[in-house]
Amino acid sequence: MGPSLDSRELEEALAFAGEWVGAYWQQLAEHPQSLPVFSRVRPGDVLSALPTHAPEVGLAGEAGWRAIAQDLDAIVMRGITHWQHPNFYAFFPSNISTPAVVGELLSAGLGVQGMLWATSPACTELETRVLDWLGRAIGLPEVFLSTSSVEGSRGGSQGGGGGGGGVIEGTASEAVLVALCAARFRARVRLGAIGGGTVSGVGGGISETKEPHLTVYASSQAHSSILKATMIAGLASGPEDRRQVRLIGVDSKMRMRSDLLASAIREDVGAGRVPAFVCATVGTTSSTAIDDIGAIASAMGEAGAKDAWLHVDAAHAGAACVCPEFQHWLAGVEHADSICFNPHKWLLTNFDCDCFWTRDRASVTGAMSITPEYLRNQASDAGEVIDYRDWQVPLGRRFRALKLWLVMRWYGLEGLREYIRSHMAMAAEFEGCVRADPMFEVVAERTMNLVCFRLAARAEESASQTDQRNRELLAKINASGLAYLTHTMLAGPSGQRERGGEMMYVLRMAIGAVLTRPEHVRGTWALIQRLANDVA
Amino acid sequence: MGPSLDSRELEEALAFAGEWVGAYWQQLAEHPQSLPVFSRVRPGDVLSALPTHAPEVGLAGEAGWRAIAQDLDAIVMRGITHWQHPNFYAFFPSNISTPAVVGELLSAGLGVQGMLWATSPACTELETRVLDWLGRAIGLPEVFLSTSSVEGSRGGSQGGGGGGGGVIEGTASEAVLVALCAARFRARVRLGAIGGGTVSGVGGGISETKEPHLTVYASSQAHSSILKATMIAGLASGPEDRRQVRLIGVDSKMRMRSDLLASAIREDVGAGRVPAFVCATVGTTSSTAIDDIGAIASAMGEAGAKDAWLHVDAAHAGAACVCPEFQHWLAGVEHADSICFNPHKWLLTNFDCDCFWTRDRASVTGAMSITPEYLRNQASDAGEVIDYRDWQVPLGRRFRALKLWLVMRWYGLEGLREYIRSHMAMAAEFEGCVRADPMFEVVAERTMNLVCFRLAARAEESASQTDQRNRELLAKINASGLAYLTHTMLAGPSGQRERGGEMMYVLRMAIGAVLTRPEHVRGTWALIQRLANDVA
Repeated sequence: MGPSLDSRELEEALAFAGEWVGAYWQQLAEHPQSLPVFSRVRPGDVLSALPTHAPEVGLAGEAGWRAIAQDLDAIVMRGITHWQHPNFYAFFPSNISTPAVVGELLSAGLGVQGMLWATSPACTELETRVLDWLGRAIGLPEVFLSTSSVEGSRGGSQGGGGGGGGVIEGTASEAVLVALCAARFRARVRLGAIGGGTVSGVGGGISETKEPHLTVYASSQAHSSILKATMIAGLASGPEDRRQVRLIGVDSKMRMRSDLLASAIREDVGAGRVPAFVCATVGTTSSTAIDDIGAIASAMGEAGAKDAWLHVDAAHAGAACVCPEFQHWLAGVEHADSICFNPHKWLLTNFDCDCFWTRDRASVTGAMSITPEYLRNQASDAGEVIDYRDWQVPLGRRFRALKLWLVMRWYGLEGLREYIRSHMAMAAEFEGCVRADPMFEVVAERTMNLVCFRLAARAEESASQTDQRNRELLAKINASGLAYLTHTMLAGPSGQRERGGEMMYVLRMAIGAVLTRPEHVRGTWALIQRLANDVA
Repeated sequence: MGPSLDSRELEEALAFAGEWVGAYWQQLAEHPQSLPVFSRVRPGDVLSALPTHAPEVGLAGEAGWRAIAQDLDAIVMRGITHWQHPNFYAFFPSNISTPAVVGELLSAGLGVQGMLWATSPACTELETRVLDWLGRAIGLPEVFLSTSSVEGSRGGSQGGGGGGGGVIEGTASEAVLVALCAARFRARVRLGAIGGGTVSGVGGGISETKEPHLTVYASSQAHSSILKATMIAGLASGPEDRRQVRLIGVDSKMRMRSDLLASAIREDVGAGRVPAFVCATVGTTSSTAIDDIGAIASAMGEAGAKDAWLHVDAAHAGAACVCPEFQHWLAGVEHADSICFNPHKWLLTNFDCDCFWTRDRASVTGAMSITPEYLRNQASDAGEVIDYRDWQVPLGRRFRALKLWLVMRWYGLEGLREYIRSHMAMAAEFEGCVRADPMFEVVAERTMNLVCFRLAARAEESASQTDQRNRELLAKINASGLAYLTHTMLAGPSGQRERGGEMMYVLRMAIGAVLTRPEHVRGTWALIQRLANDVA
């Protein structure tokens, strides 16, 4: 039988896959120590175990799935770093959950492609509604919701012309690239470099006005994806190119200094450059520092950049804002033009799922729209609907709203809040352990579920010796297979250490895996203490 | 119980999801007429059936899944346009299959994030190997395979420095954006505008050399994603901006005219501009025209653009090249720098899965690399491995190689070839039917599984009247719910029609859905003939 969509074949296949994944989950939950968190294979090990050429003849039936399972177990699994392990504390978490996995399966089984409203209206409208749900849940003001425009003037482009709304992007990297393009579009329109001075002038005449020298601002602690977006967008030729990009210094808590932002803006404005984009970070990757959005917005206004686009990157931290007690992290967001966070990090929704909201959808679609003939259709031409392809880099899109919808339905907001609070409590306990042990020090204010710590400097050793001991400690932890942590470099707390602002090697303990329980954190702390004694 | 990874909960959930998807597939296969292919909901119908606020309390157990199933059936399904319907002939196909769905499920259940080699070596190495499999299968020369460099000099950046290899991108839109950024990077390096004149100079000094005026070329029939990529990359301020973008005219078969390409390049070179990127299309979206890659490469060389990047967009057509008899479509690809195609279109692998190969990985990673401290690790620093985050826009990536691996294992190359040939045969038969009916005409050479046709012009009617009758016919077909086709605008075959090169409204019949069998195509042709009689 050639390829088909056969319900019996599917049943057999899902029986295999369900059993295989179920066994993996059981092992993760009940015997995690049997799985080294950080894969121990060497470069090329997996590659060399795979045939060099594709098979000519296929597989079939139960025997086929048994052959697949064998290769999964023998070849693939030893090359897996277990992100879902209860002792995975590296980077940021990458949550999965039963309802999200089911959502992926339903999306795959339906096989719809939601590039346009018309190519599956439910794919677009479920997304619009779920993004409104989640936006409200994290306390976003009404201007970021789709209802801000649906009630307004109909008949413009993109479902009502102005107003806001949310969309699922692949990642926060893509979201910041979209925001940056929207910012550039709006600046060009404002300066008369595109169209007739209105944002609806897409496809209108391109004036020969000199291209403005646009500038971009983020803190030195902002995510690398901001720099990558400036490279892709052509505002920088490499990560070190500072002709249009300004990395603003941070205070002792690693937050962007709004006074330095204001100075940088003033200098650029004074030199005839046009500040176009500012990125505030709520929960930096290194240490989950929380930029003060309100102070940044004020600095922009006072320094002459009130028209620049303010984007808030809350990739990791946004999830926690489903809890009212953490929504103050987003204070000032009412001044922002866009904000994103990733339910695929800390909100139980499989990668990829980045939620991006904007109050200025016209600039987003202005920057991202192209309408070739083969995509024209009645609903879009009438401007009654949202076509999400105009909110993102790719044209095609899968039905990702299903998994987010199922996660929110399955756990309810109450369940999601409890989930976040459990990790926050574990992080607080871990911080307490570190602080209670004089061999260690906490080296950045803990704002959420990340603890940045290290072996404290000994009186007699140099800074690089301390770094080296910490490097060794991390290597031992990860080599043990019992836990996986990563590191970063942070400026020493000023005043606390004689070498002041110098960079130091720091261990990051990010507590946010689905299976992590207090006993795992306690066990890991005991492991760290034990291995610390082995470090000379 | 709070969120966990519980194998019993998963079993229950997959039982529900498997049954639900299985029932849908059975309906598609056995009673397709019970599902209108093109969704009939009106804008807002789905939205207004959904609660305005997220639930506070979650669901659980079997009753929970029953509630979900109810909403799926009552709210979501009526807003679905059925891409997997046997009578879906719109756009290009968006294939799914049992092994691909299983691959998505395994990927979701493993929950690994493969941004770096170290974050799951199997995720990277399985991808590298499967891309080599598929590259060989479509006849790509060795320079595009990872083995072209692994055998070479080790110790450079990115697994051996130079050489080629493949990667899975989300979509062809992302692939062309990556290729464009690589092209720009290489041009800047060549002109001394970045680093010390070597491509390994990432992060090196940025010279103050004047930014070169780079130019980009594609045919007027190229996909809209090329223009979108130039907008995102900052080479165009909108889809109509031609300061750096040249759309080259086509011949009567809708293929890029290499003589016009050469003239455009010569004009730019003469004016001091720097041709940096040329996109050839194998299988255009409107009519699956096949650009002559060899002729394009020759024109580039002769006109002074031998150093420009040549990208081949074979998004839809590449799948067919698993058949030796269609590999001549790619003749000349040995002169290209990159090529991509989408197994998620016509090769049984769920969206998203775009395969992108380059012979110049150093320029790709040069354009896309940034290495913040928190991503540094031993394997990457030693240059022994591939970190695919440096080959793409996003940082994170899911384990998409699994589904492609399973599709190739399950069907084998023989099965994939049969599959492609079955659609080609159906398209040939459909073309024959159209040609045999004097009421209709075929309006572009059929190169593969797409037939471009229309109601022929009547002697007494104007061109716009013919267009109008075709527009009405398409509306009737789609409103019937029995089939879904889309349209495009094509230039009339010169000489054949008195209005020569004017654009005319054309129906597109793309035959590539998994369930489509000859009887579906025949039934659809009978439907079209019947409805044609109803069009005044």
